[in-house]
Amino acid sequence: MTSTTAGPDLAPGPATSPVTAPAAPTARAALLLHPVPLGASRSTGGFWFERMQINRRQAIRTGYDKLQTAGNLRNLRIAAGVEQGEATGPIFMDSDVYKWLEAAGWEHAREPDPQILGWIREITAVVAAAQAADGYLDSVQQVRGQGARYTDLHWSHEHYCAGHLFQAAVAVHRGTGETGLLDIAVKLADHLVATFGPGRTEEVDGHPVVEMGLVELFRETGNRAYLDLARWFVDARGHDIIRTRHGAEPTYFSDRLPVRETTSPEGHAVRAIYLTAGAADLAAETGDVELLDALVRQWEGMLSSKTYVTGGIGSRWDWEQFGDHYELGPDRAYAETCAAIASVQWSWRMLLATGEARYADLVERTLFNAFLPGVSLAGTEYFYVNALQLRHDAHAEEERSVAHGRRPWFDCACCPPNIMRTLSQLDAYVATSSDRDGVAGVQLHQFTTGEVQAGGARVRVDTDYPWDGTVRVEVLESPGEFELALRVPGWAEGAVATVVGEPVPTTAGDYLRVRRAFSVGDVVELVLPMTVRIVEADPRVDAVRGCVVVERGPLVYAVEQVDLPDGLVADDVRVRVAELRDARAEHRSDLLDGVTVLHLPVHAAVGAAAGPLYRPAGDDPAPQAEDTVQVVPSVPYYAWANRELGAMRVWLPRA
Amino acid sequence: MTSTTAGPDLAPGPATSPVTAPAAPTARAALLLHPVPLGASRSTGGFWFERMQINRRQAIRTGYDKLQTAGNLRNLRIAAGVEQGEATGPIFMDSDVYKWLEAAGWEHAREPDPQILGWIREITAVVAAAQAADGYLDSVQQVRGQGARYTDLHWSHEHYCAGHLFQAAVAVHRGTGETGLLDIAVKLADHLVATFGPGRTEEVDGHPVVEMGLVELFRETGNRAYLDLARWFVDARGHDIIRTRHGAEPTYFSDRLPVRETTSPEGHAVRAIYLTAGAADLAAETGDVELLDALVRQWEGMLSSKTYVTGGIGSRWDWEQFGDHYELGPDRAYAETCAAIASVQWSWRMLLATGEARYADLVERTLFNAFLPGVSLAGTEYFYVNALQLRHDAHAEEERSVAHGRRPWFDCACCPPNIMRTLSQLDAYVATSSDRDGVAGVQLHQFTTGEVQAGGARVRVDTDYPWDGTVRVEVLESPGEFELALRVPGWAEGAVATVVGEPVPTTAGDYLRVRRAFSVGDVVELVLPMTVRIVEADPRVDAVRGCVVVERGPLVYAVEQVDLPDGLVADDVRVRVAELRDARAEHRSDLLDGVTVLHLPVHAAVGAAAGPLYRPAGDDPAPQAEDTVQVVPSVPYYAWANRELGAMRVWLPRA
Repeated sequence: MTSTTAGPDLAPGPATSPVTAPAAPTARAALLLHPVPLGASRSTGGFWFERMQINRRQAIRTGYDKLQTAGNLRNLRIAAGVEQGEATGPIFMDSDVYKWLEAAGWEHAREPDPQILGWIREITAVVAAAQAADGYLDSVQQVRGQGARYTDLHWSHEHYCAGHLFQAAVAVHRGTGETGLLDIAVKLADHLVATFGPGRTEEVDGHPVVEMGLVELFRETGNRAYLDLARWFVDARGHDIIRTRHGAEPTYFSDRLPVRETTSPEGHAVRAIYLTAGAADLAAETGDVELLDALVRQWEGMLSSKTYVTGGIGSRWDWEQFGDHYELGPDRAYAETCAAIASVQWSWRMLLATGEARYADLVERTLFNAFLPGVSLAGTEYFYVNALQLRHDAHAEEERSVAHGRRPWFDCACCPPNIMRTLSQLDAYVATSSDRDGVAGVQLHQFTTGEVQAGGARVRVDTDYPWDGTVRVEVLESPGEFELALRVPGWAEGAVATVVGEPVPTTAGDYLRVRRAFSVGDVVELVLPMTVRIVEADPRVDAVRGCVVVERGPLVYAVEQVDLPDGLVADDVRVRVAELRDARAEHRSDLLDGVTVLHLPVHAAVGAAAGPLYRPAGDDPAPQAEDTVQVVPSVPYYAWANRELGAMRVWLPRA
Repeated sequence: MTSTTAGPDLAPGPATSPVTAPAAPTARAALLLHPVPLGASRSTGGFWFERMQINRRQAIRTGYDKLQTAGNLRNLRIAAGVEQGEATGPIFMDSDVYKWLEAAGWEHAREPDPQILGWIREITAVVAAAQAADGYLDSVQQVRGQGARYTDLHWSHEHYCAGHLFQAAVAVHRGTGETGLLDIAVKLADHLVATFGPGRTEEVDGHPVVEMGLVELFRETGNRAYLDLARWFVDARGHDIIRTRHGAEPTYFSDRLPVRETTSPEGHAVRAIYLTAGAADLAAETGDVELLDALVRQWEGMLSSKTYVTGGIGSRWDWEQFGDHYELGPDRAYAETCAAIASVQWSWRMLLATGEARYADLVERTLFNAFLPGVSLAGTEYFYVNALQLRHDAHAEEERSVAHGRRPWFDCACCPPNIMRTLSQLDAYVATSSDRDGVAGVQLHQFTTGEVQAGGARVRVDTDYPWDGTVRVEVLESPGEFELALRVPGWAEGAVATVVGEPVPTTAGDYLRVRRAFSVGDVVELVLPMTVRIVEADPRVDAVRGCVVVERGPLVYAVEQVDLPDGLVADDVRVRVAELRDARAEHRSDLLDGVTVLHLPVHAAVGAAAGPLYRPAGDDPAPQAEDTVQVVPSVPYYAWANRELGAMRVWLPRA
């Protein structure tokens, strides 16, 4: 139980330093790294800080308004009996309230704000009034269900809403010190413990998240019953409860196979990965190495054939599901913003358990390229779906279609408040601490300007990442000997580093680990090569055959119609890799809140406009590019659709 | 009113021969060709005849059983009050009954069968008992709706079921001479006329088909009120009735734009194309040239960017919809069997109205490659969805997934009886007649062994099509001078023909028209080149970039796992076009009810197994094929998944 750590938390496990972490892909220890206490990692400037400030100033404020106007709070008031009417919106409307409360809790911790605190108190009172005397709480079910509880648990999201309440309660408690929401959460958790589990109601919710929530609540309260119930929920899954009780096809609900037997995620992406994240919490808390090994295998399965180049996951619109292996079409990529958040949460937990840089690499790729595209630069509009291609004449249909551009809210508004809570706790993903043989360690996983305090040390990080590759770490306080570790991303072949001016070798995809008696003022500097990288996919990814992606640093780039000259449609852009290597980078502080643009030499496909859809094939593919090269700017994918909405391509066909 | 013509019918319009039909894409005359009377086109052997006989002997018999066991007839009995209980299945369960009745009616016309007639009478009695006194009929709505009618017309399918009843009633009347079902249909149609239309209830059904049904019923009865109501339904669409009345997004329901303004089909594929087919009926009956021109444009829009190489349509699983232009991914191709049927119905009507071969070309491509794959060779199992690729480790999930293989029936069983009625009336798509300046014309659009009688002429067709390209037409009866026209498919460049032994020139994609004083015994012979053709897609079809399709005659070929040697997975097959041109054709009468196999030289992708999902790109695409060539058989796509279910590819990546 660690009542002072922020966000994605893991209580202390066996203390081992990442320095000696086994290189083998399956970790044998249940926990290697520890989150730093709330406030001990603090961004003070730069890229993510700006996003966090906009989230605080814009998103969280408009989110509060949306909870009023979309009916979420009204549902709770109706459940409380203080307002009359029918419940509004999808069954899981309460969870939006809890996600927003979680964001507000972390924000208040980042910087106290009487208005935010006032809103938290106001909404907590609404939630408290809705709770039944025995602890049960789910406003939509209370209002629509006419007293029925858990009768339709595969669809009802009753545990799902509870899980988000637990996470919110921990955040508000840690962030404000107030116990109002925590009391509600404990009362509901006690009700769940009394109702579910072996010998009681043996059922699982159709949508996981309660597992993570219960473990968090265990950490906050020390009540092992919550951990035990989380374990039961994780282990009960995959034993056909949902099909047996409700006649539903189990894949969608992550109920086809036990977590321990799943080698590649399947079904509804958010459900599947909230479950694995919860299972990772459980493995860490219980030292369950077998479970952790199974999660390592499943994570590798996801990364090897079911992850978009952006880090996004979930390729099917129908039922928001993972596709088959290598089914990763860019135009119909679903890549739900919430699924990206789930992936970050899971990889973070795997990082803590194993200390392996690959998990932090995926956190970084996903944050920049699959999570961040979900919110507008202004912080007020959202993508639910993150397609990697939009054709110039795409038809904007239902609310999730990217052809609408980002939208202020959704009827099914799971993503916006999920983005809010993630940005509010982003500092927690930056650093961890370790303690091995009495020597403290500080690991820097994500690069942002700010300060980190851990293990008696305090360091200041200065960087203009992701635009510039230099990360400067200065020791502000030192306990004497400690180990400072900086992640060298997997893409950063050729990174160079100096320790107090002396060059040291680096390995891409591993940590630069410096163990010494640091003095105040000592500087470790890492310089990551910000060259333009051209990437292609495994040939089994049929949908992007013959295409490449342009990357720089941690960012995936996109060609947008608004940047193209008249007559050149983004659909028809073609590239030659040899020419792309000469792409010039230019930082444009005036553009898109400041981005480094890559000027790409491109060709226009010819022959596309004429002829029938299907035609005789030549011995070799017909030439599809003119000789004339035009140089056009490309922008980071996260920033697309912030100007004029139009055609967009991440995967660029070869000429 | 033409009470003796079969299946897809059009009453006489301005009589013009296709000989002088304008080459311009937009026809100015409303009707050029006429269906031949029921029984005047009769297959007696060969490819389609075999499929029709299996349909008669297997599908229609098992279909009768399914109507009993799946609850369709029970629903009607409950509505009639002779059985108790709740209605079973989706809201449109009645339509399966009507489609089956339609099939049975045409089958009885093909060859009278007392058992089939007995079933028709039995089921007609069940339907009659369910009908309300005022003509209303929809068993599921009657049982579930507690008296409510048309309250939820965008979802309820009440008109949809009526439309299928009308089509069935016409078929049964024409096929058996009995009026029982027609009486029910007229009573329901009169009720619709009294209820809907200008000044009455101004609403449209969410699922078109009633338009075609009403026009057919007008043709059968001569009651213009049915034609007027069909016209009102067609014209009312696209004026936001569904959004206004029900708050639903209109694209899915083909209600976003009027038919006259739609340039490319969108929304739910079956809905969209049943509507255009009904509109084509209307254009023909009313001589509405503006409407026909709009339909020509929309048909061209479909063909130019929204049609699979198989002729299948509808690329999105979510909501069974058309995708954007060029969104034609093979792995998630939806290509619903019912949508292929709708496309055939529409193209047939466009052919009648314009006389242009391109419509018959699409009918052929669709029948062989998008419709026929929907049913097993045994005639007892069905595909709902017709994907063009199945990966070797695809996960079989919900009932529509092709990873299950074909299935005996579906909870939503729209496709199986739709296949039955289409095969039962297939002879009607073979030939038409014309009459211009007193000279009769007979047009042969599809090639099947059998006889056609029209315009005083009778001809016998002999062919082993689609395996052999020779089509021999012998005149059995002649009225003197008449014009015999044979379609030369668009793919058949270099076709040769003789008329009474004399060579005549042909043009691919047009009709070979022979106008002369034919004598009995005169022979016209068309020889289509059955070479192997290698086809590629417009480069805007991103999903099949760098891939080709192998075709022969009207057939699209597929590589199936069951035909590959150990160690070669269909996912990894690569081809070189120059080598494919040498593919050897071999007719295998022992295989798949007799197919011509193409032996394709293929390579195996290398480098696919190792390395990360995303990797640095070389200046040129990495070589993906070994030097060794293996020759493997490929089979017509329609026949796939009739042996061992496994990986399958229609689009073959270039090595």
